[in-house]
Amino acid sequence: MRLLPMSLVLLAVAPLPAAQPGMWLPQQLPRIAQDLQASGLKLDPRQLADLTGFPMGAIVSLKGCSASFVSPDGLIVTNHHCVLGALQYNATPARDLIADGFLAHRRQDEIPARPDARVLVTTGIRDVTASVLRADEASLPDGERWRRVARHRKELAAECEKPGGRRCQVEAFFGGESFLLFEAMEIQDVRLVYAPAEGVGNFGDEIDNWMWPRHAGDFGFYRAYVGPDGKPAPPSPRNVPYRPKNYLHLATRDLDPGDFVMVLGYPGTTHRLDTADELAEAQQFELPTSIRYRNLLLAELHAAGEKDAAVAIANASRVASLENYLKKHQGTLVALERDGIVARKREEEARQRARDPSVHAVEADLQRALAPGRAVRQRDTVLAWLATASPLLDQAEKLVRLAENRGKQDLDRDEGYQARDFTDLWAGIERAQKQIEPGSDRRGLRLFLLEATRLPAGQRLEPLDRLLAATGAASPEAQVDALLDRLYGGTRLTDLGRRRALFEAMPDALHGDGDPMLELALALWPVHAEIDARDDGEEGALLRLRPRLVAAQRAAAGELAPDANGTLRVIYGRVEGYTPRDGLTAVPQTTISGVLEKDTGVAPFDSPKRLLEKARAASFGTYADPDLGTLPVDFLSTSSVTNGSSGSATLNAWGELCGLAFDTNLEAVSADYLYDPRWTRTIHVDVRYLLWVAQEVDGATELLEELRVGPPENK
Amino acid sequence: MRLLPMSLVLLAVAPLPAAQPGMWLPQQLPRIAQDLQASGLKLDPRQLADLTGFPMGAIVSLKGCSASFVSPDGLIVTNHHCVLGALQYNATPARDLIADGFLAHRRQDEIPARPDARVLVTTGIRDVTASVLRADEASLPDGERWRRVARHRKELAAECEKPGGRRCQVEAFFGGESFLLFEAMEIQDVRLVYAPAEGVGNFGDEIDNWMWPRHAGDFGFYRAYVGPDGKPAPPSPRNVPYRPKNYLHLATRDLDPGDFVMVLGYPGTTHRLDTADELAEAQQFELPTSIRYRNLLLAELHAAGEKDAAVAIANASRVASLENYLKKHQGTLVALERDGIVARKREEEARQRARDPSVHAVEADLQRALAPGRAVRQRDTVLAWLATASPLLDQAEKLVRLAENRGKQDLDRDEGYQARDFTDLWAGIERAQKQIEPGSDRRGLRLFLLEATRLPAGQRLEPLDRLLAATGAASPEAQVDALLDRLYGGTRLTDLGRRRALFEAMPDALHGDGDPMLELALALWPVHAEIDARDDGEEGALLRLRPRLVAAQRAAAGELAPDANGTLRVIYGRVEGYTPRDGLTAVPQTTISGVLEKDTGVAPFDSPKRLLEKARAASFGTYADPDLGTLPVDFLSTSSVTNGSSGSATLNAWGELCGLAFDTNLEAVSADYLYDPRWTRTIHVDVRYLLWVAQEVDGATELLEELRVGPPENK
Repeated sequence: MRLLPMSLVLLAVAPLPAAQPGMWLPQQLPRIAQDLQASGLKLDPRQLADLTGFPMGAIVSLKGCSASFVSPDGLIVTNHHCVLGALQYNATPARDLIADGFLAHRRQDEIPARPDARVLVTTGIRDVTASVLRADEASLPDGERWRRVARHRKELAAECEKPGGRRCQVEAFFGGESFLLFEAMEIQDVRLVYAPAEGVGNFGDEIDNWMWPRHAGDFGFYRAYVGPDGKPAPPSPRNVPYRPKNYLHLATRDLDPGDFVMVLGYPGTTHRLDTADELAEAQQFELPTSIRYRNLLLAELHAAGEKDAAVAIANASRVASLENYLKKHQGTLVALERDGIVARKREEEARQRARDPSVHAVEADLQRALAPGRAVRQRDTVLAWLATASPLLDQAEKLVRLAENRGKQDLDRDEGYQARDFTDLWAGIERAQKQIEPGSDRRGLRLFLLEATRLPAGQRLEPLDRLLAATGAASPEAQVDALLDRLYGGTRLTDLGRRRALFEAMPDALHGDGDPMLELALALWPVHAEIDARDDGEEGALLRLRPRLVAAQRAAAGELAPDANGTLRVIYGRVEGYTPRDGLTAVPQTTISGVLEKDTGVAPFDSPKRLLEKARAASFGTYADPDLGTLPVDFLSTSSVTNGSSGSATLNAWGELCGLAFDTNLEAVSADYLYDPRWTRTIHVDVRYLLWVAQEVDGATELLEELRVGPPENK
Repeated sequence: MRLLPMSLVLLAVAPLPAAQPGMWLPQQLPRIAQDLQASGLKLDPRQLADLTGFPMGAIVSLKGCSASFVSPDGLIVTNHHCVLGALQYNATPARDLIADGFLAHRRQDEIPARPDARVLVTTGIRDVTASVLRADEASLPDGERWRRVARHRKELAAECEKPGGRRCQVEAFFGGESFLLFEAMEIQDVRLVYAPAEGVGNFGDEIDNWMWPRHAGDFGFYRAYVGPDGKPAPPSPRNVPYRPKNYLHLATRDLDPGDFVMVLGYPGTTHRLDTADELAEAQQFELPTSIRYRNLLLAELHAAGEKDAAVAIANASRVASLENYLKKHQGTLVALERDGIVARKREEEARQRARDPSVHAVEADLQRALAPGRAVRQRDTVLAWLATASPLLDQAEKLVRLAENRGKQDLDRDEGYQARDFTDLWAGIERAQKQIEPGSDRRGLRLFLLEATRLPAGQRLEPLDRLLAATGAASPEAQVDALLDRLYGGTRLTDLGRRRALFEAMPDALHGDGDPMLELALALWPVHAEIDARDDGEEGALLRLRPRLVAAQRAAAGELAPDANGTLRVIYGRVEGYTPRDGLTAVPQTTISGVLEKDTGVAPFDSPKRLLEKARAASFGTYADPDLGTLPVDFLSTSSVTNGSSGSATLNAWGELCGLAFDTNLEAVSADYLYDPRWTRTIHVDVRYLLWVAQEVDGATELLEELRVGPPENK
């Protein structure tokens, strides 16, 4: 899998009663110190609560991926799939950086990661609950209260960002029980230092994705640069390497089954505290629909690319993302059904109600609050998929939303559409250019326009019905095709310059533009606005209700970990295999012999020749594992990660970097809803494999020297 | 896999130097007593050398399968796939015995297994080397010497069988270093007692065939009947259950990983003592050719059956057999290449030559002796496949060979075509009736006739070339089709009555018959005769040379086990898993939870409803394994079996029946050439699963009572 943020966030579901392995906030760790130490941690748990100390100060976010400083000169290690964008950005026909990898022997050889690449170093966390949840606003209607809460969050972030060079964010925990303000230094000059060949970093690709046993060397290196004054600055040759106060040093010890490990990073989204009712919605509607629509759209994109390699290339990253989540959602659905998770969750809730009868009314309220959205779930899903299927419509919808927001005061704008977001928004629009392929776009849009014509009464996309009727064609198919003719015959949104002009425009300018794709987006805008208003009410209700359900869970389970929300977390466990099915045991470590077993010489199992030679020569030196008697490659732990955790530092009991998290096993994907000790595992690349590849395969002498500057002074 | 004898015996190859796990002759066991005891055997190894004592006296052959007595009333246990023929024979449209299974609660409900079913009880082994290898014949030319040896073997068997009710056979060991005469009582009245439903006995079918983890309850029960005088007699209602002197009793103890087990049965053919040169021939020619031809023929048969269910049914058992060996040969080829077995064997031979330089000349002689056959290997392979592809041509060839032999003195006839074989021969011809399907027959024969037209010069099937030329058609394809028109337009061999008449005939009658399929067989007969004569020379040379190479191996390895040849053997090892690939461990026991995991309700994963209910209720009583905490199903051991071993009794250290061997893992199929401790495993059904199914699923109360008659008096 790719642990990147999900494009379609699922509204979904389910936890276990007792103190299950959680994604802990650093400040919670002193409260579970006993369990941490019993599990094998040799550091003082209080040390982990210090965000600006060692080791937490070394853990950074790449926005979508996690990473960590590993030298006093701002060297950063993360996953290969997290530096893939930098390889793509710098690749030329003459220099296939993806296939061959990249290595800068000297600082001056390092190349820009990507213009929008960022390194976020968390510098503080502050509880702002009292400023967000005001007593005098507590009894406002749900929707209105939610809008006030949203505004307070934006105010607090704006206040925090005033000094500049910072990124601030207020995040909700436990469904809005508390709100924390995260302050991060935002480094803007990020350069690529080293990535192994694709045959190492992405060994196995889609075939091995979400799978164990695994044999990928999924690692890569960036370096953070700042201005000569040590402060964040735009990319410039005058910039100097950032000197982090904290950085990790690489493990020199053996790693064995049963050993304590902890994963430090920024997991994206989980739903473990959701209700059985929400989980049932995921199992019965959201996941099956996602699977069906992904399959349908993938079939169109594959058909479009079959005869034309250029089309296939343009669609490649969309196809990869659709397939990635298709596999994840299929695995999740299988696991939900296999383990009867909804039923288990319902039993847990019954026990909670027995302890605290007031829970019943809260659950009923919550179900009532979610009812309006569920009544039009097919309509809303098709609406979302129209834009997923058509990058052109997606662009038009973004431009419309931006123009609608532009007319407002900055603090009244939607989250993600404020002035602070414009750079990122534009980078996204620019990046989309590569994915615009009108033929595939039309095939995809046709699929979901037809789906819209089949929506049941009461869930119609009425503006679309009007546009289709206006074509004057007889059958729904003929109407859709007539509309498509007009859209793709007339739109000029394929032109990046046109989109730049519209990027600056106000709503009136868009209404007068006449571009048919913009007109479709504008026609659909009232539906989006209606959904936004309904969502505000829903969110306000959840804010009122979920904390009460969480409190009931906590009463039973003790210290509870909040669901992931993209903030810094500590996840701990031990090196351990599992039983994929009766009669087979997945052992927790793979070795270089598995690389040789899998290698076929053909992608995605095409190791570099030099790796094969060195592996066959079995010259592993000190990187060999004394117990395995050979070179370790990847390992499993009972920790549990999710999208966004990619690249997370994995530390041993002494706080040394022993690996990088990069995936979970397919049996574990349902852990977003429920941690199951039988199945839930994280897949890590062993740091010894990283070092061996760097030394023996790629001759990265300077990098190895930098990584071995001795134990950090601050430890 | 189906451990049935191979239809196309491969001339092939390879052993490990030292005392590797072997298929031991019972009389060898006292010589390796120390290793047996160190491995865990609690019985006196000398006890195992006594063929008429306990436990060896209980081990019987079903001709193609192994089995054992398990009650004083002649009850026999073997594999489900070894009683499948009896289920097929007795099935009617109203009573699907294959799907539903069969259970006779009372003796009078037991039904005939099949008219040609036999139980052979080994009653004696005698060394007859001096009578077979006569000093005064030692210097005869190879071919002539081989024919003398063959005649002496037949003389000895005939002499032995004189008293009647016996089957005697002289078998060669260590490539003819020694010859042993086996005397067996031949029981002719065999009845079916119990077979579980197909969804138990053949759970997983082709998908799981040769695979681990496995969850089949591959067991079934016969009963042997004899005349009121206790002697073998043709089937008759007056017959009474045979009372064996020895029978096994079922294990009451737990079976754990690491425990000693031994497999007692009649393995068919192995090639572990063959030379690297012979192994290379298998790897380079025999196995790839078998795989290619099986694939081609399977494609034709599948195509033929696609539109017509009746055709598919007629071809079903041929398809199953072709697929079974296709999977085995593919697995063998993969393993030979994966493990570099030819190279390892060559190294071993180089070490032997270093110790004993005379080996070199022997190897060269052997290669020379095999050269003439190899020069025409493509021709001979196509010739064999003509009959494999066309059951009608196969019938014609059998009738021709029988007629050619009928004119000779009985002792001069080919082995398998003597008067003692006529009953079996006729049973085979009768059984073939079900498989004759002229449309498929023609498609298959066409495939290999075309293959014959593409044979290289020097390897032409000349009589066939003449027949094709005589059609007057222009292209090879047109000639083949013209010949096929004549063959299938004119042959009456589809009629069993016609074949019965020809079965009695002499060669002259066949020549005058005019049936075009017979004419094809007669035209090809001289090529067969030429091959027979060449084979005599080859066999004579091997008889002269192989014992010298074996002696060199024995000098290095000590006590050596002979290759399997269908005679009674003891194979011992321990319960142990293996590593199918890096990162995965195959644990040595499967459990009922795996049956529930695999069950889909659809064949081949359709357990009986009652089994699912009982399994879900987890009512396993004393059959549960105390360590696993649930019901064991199948297990692995390091013993090594081959085709013919199916149904072999698996005994624990105390000589109790703890399982039945029924398959090997796919990684182990190359063990016919080389035992590799990393991969070579046998798959057994656990006797506790058998008992649980019999009791809880099928309610076989009487059978369970009979099986629990207490420890046998003769133990």
